[in-house]
Amino acid sequence: MNRVYNFAAGPSTMPQEALEIAAREMLDFHGSGMSVMEMSHRSKLYQEIFDDTEAVLRGLMHIPDRYAVLFLQGGATGQFAAIPMNLMNGSGAADYVDSGNFAHGALVEAKKYGDARAVASSREADYAGIPALDPAAFNPDADYFYICANNTIYGTRYAAFPETGKVPLVADMSSNILSEVVDVNRFGVIYAGAQKNVGPAGLTIVIVRRDLLGHARPTTPKIFDWSIQAEKGSMLNTPPTYAIYMAGLCMKWLKAQGGVEGIERVNIEKANLLYDILDDSAFYRPRAEKASRSRMNVTFTTPSPELDAAFVKEAEAQGMVSLKGHRITGGIRASIYNAMPVEGVRKLAAFMKQFEVDHRAGV
Amino acid sequence: MNRVYNFAAGPSTMPQEALEIAAREMLDFHGSGMSVMEMSHRSKLYQEIFDDTEAVLRGLMHIPDRYAVLFLQGGATGQFAAIPMNLMNGSGAADYVDSGNFAHGALVEAKKYGDARAVASSREADYAGIPALDPAAFNPDADYFYICANNTIYGTRYAAFPETGKVPLVADMSSNILSEVVDVNRFGVIYAGAQKNVGPAGLTIVIVRRDLLGHARPTTPKIFDWSIQAEKGSMLNTPPTYAIYMAGLCMKWLKAQGGVEGIERVNIEKANLLYDILDDSAFYRPRAEKASRSRMNVTFTTPSPELDAAFVKEAEAQGMVSLKGHRITGGIRASIYNAMPVEGVRKLAAFMKQFEVDHRAGV
Repeated sequence: MNRVYNFAAGPSTMPQEALEIAAREMLDFHGSGMSVMEMSHRSKLYQEIFDDTEAVLRGLMHIPDRYAVLFLQGGATGQFAAIPMNLMNGSGAADYVDSGNFAHGALVEAKKYGDARAVASSREADYAGIPALDPAAFNPDADYFYICANNTIYGTRYAAFPETGKVPLVADMSSNILSEVVDVNRFGVIYAGAQKNVGPAGLTIVIVRRDLLGHARPTTPKIFDWSIQAEKGSMLNTPPTYAIYMAGLCMKWLKAQGGVEGIERVNIEKANLLYDILDDSAFYRPRAEKASRSRMNVTFTTPSPELDAAFVKEAEAQGMVSLKGHRITGGIRASIYNAMPVEGVRKLAAFMKQFEVDHRAGV
Repeated sequence: MNRVYNFAAGPSTMPQEALEIAAREMLDFHGSGMSVMEMSHRSKLYQEIFDDTEAVLRGLMHIPDRYAVLFLQGGATGQFAAIPMNLMNGSGAADYVDSGNFAHGALVEAKKYGDARAVASSREADYAGIPALDPAAFNPDADYFYICANNTIYGTRYAAFPETGKVPLVADMSSNILSEVVDVNRFGVIYAGAQKNVGPAGLTIVIVRRDLLGHARPTTPKIFDWSIQAEKGSMLNTPPTYAIYMAGLCMKWLKAQGGVEGIERVNIEKANLLYDILDDSAFYRPRAEKASRSRMNVTFTTPSPELDAAFVKEAEAQGMVSLKGHRITGGIRASIYNAMPVEGVRKLAAFMKQFEVDHRAGV
């Protein structure tokens, strides 16, 4: 077996230790005589796995009891609708920061249900950075204020979260959850698709302050009603049982790395390895504004689309895969989530230097 | 390793061969150097797995091209809302047959979106059978006619599907899909949560006649809009990639068993092994009416709740687990989906006979 370094934006690389445990337990979980995949979600044994997973997540993120933790289906895109359905129940208005493709998609979806508007946008600047925010422009009567904390496609990140006062701050953390220390208390809702930094695709984590529950509009599909899901322990219907188990294995791995506090230091180190090369080079061009640089998705270009393609191809031949940028931006993107080892990033950094040496002359 | 016979109603037992392949491929799928769980859903390699899974399903069920096949999230309960959202666009009315708890839940959910009514119900009879259907009572202007083809909790099944003329027939086949030959052409929509007869939880299959697409109401969450999902090849957002792969492995196993045609014969044999005992016994009492008996979920009671509990406990000690009936019905339920081997059912049958001998005298 020859594992590659997988720089995909999500689904992406997972801790090898977690995969090894999953392989070992596939036909017989802890002497139960069955796979976790085969367990009734109503069984005591599965409930233990579920509760344990929630407890580990609460520990890693220091989630207070006054927040419910939900394990749902439908991805972030499902929550684009669930958020207004659950929260647009006062003024019917919400402020969105349009900082990238997924933030924009969330805004467009929310307009189906109420008066959602972009309070700031970097769309015209090709989403090169997080837009400047003017608190004076914020709607104090908004039902919520929406941000996408890390923009996977463009490689941008909030260096500081906006102050929204009494208006609940809602954050899509699909691509940076568990990668850096975040004070949950600052948020009304944090949510994330699991497939980047938590576990496999098919699981969506929603962390919601309990006082925000109980106000879903009547036409909300039951599975999207956070109050019902909180009351039912995320088991209104069958949850994605195996994805939850896998997320648990990955989170236990993270705990063993020193938790979020420990991995954040590693993530900064990993990101700097690549940004230092970009900053020292006249060959590579970083895509994101310096002040908005993501630690999870490092985006850049070489001097030409042809060289971008050559870069991706040569890297792949050396066991570093999925470095092609998103189809919207082109270029190169290295997604370096928690499970990407420092060695993988070092190997990529060395490759980048050599590629520059090899191709600089021809430009 | 000592595998049990798992009679859970779903998630439930899966083919051991499929689990063995999954375990082997967990860290390195076909020399790719990564797990299927780690693959970008936009990669060529994953798309091949996805397309292959769809092709196998189409082959097994003989699904014509004029039907789209969608691999979604959210379970049957998600589709309870998606069905009216996508289909209630003409008269705004729909007929439901209230044949069990899940059919009832679908009806209640649909009432949020339009004029859904029960055209027949066995609710007052504790759902002991499929209610008699009077075609004269069907609404000829209904946007669709809804049935739950197999009622997992009560152990009932349609021996024949209703004739609904031009009104599209919509069927929840969560607990009997791929277990018996069905003429897809008779249906407007067939859908199923995967976790009973297809694969792991977290995947929902929707088979929809293409002429029914394109009429979702404007407030439909994008992920529930079948037209958008059909257009995007079920990849509007990240699909449950690993669950789809596992479903593919299970379906290939099914193909090797002679497909649906082959497994249907086995399923009839398995069901008869248990029903023959119930019919020959004055000790056991079958729950479902004879004409409505399910081949997937065999429900019955012993002379007392205490003996029911003893039955479940003694069976468990002999490696036959999850035989406890649903909390609504009590009693005993043996779910014998495709992946339950005949040997498991024979073992249960032998146990039932012995249990009767052991406990008959005390009654």
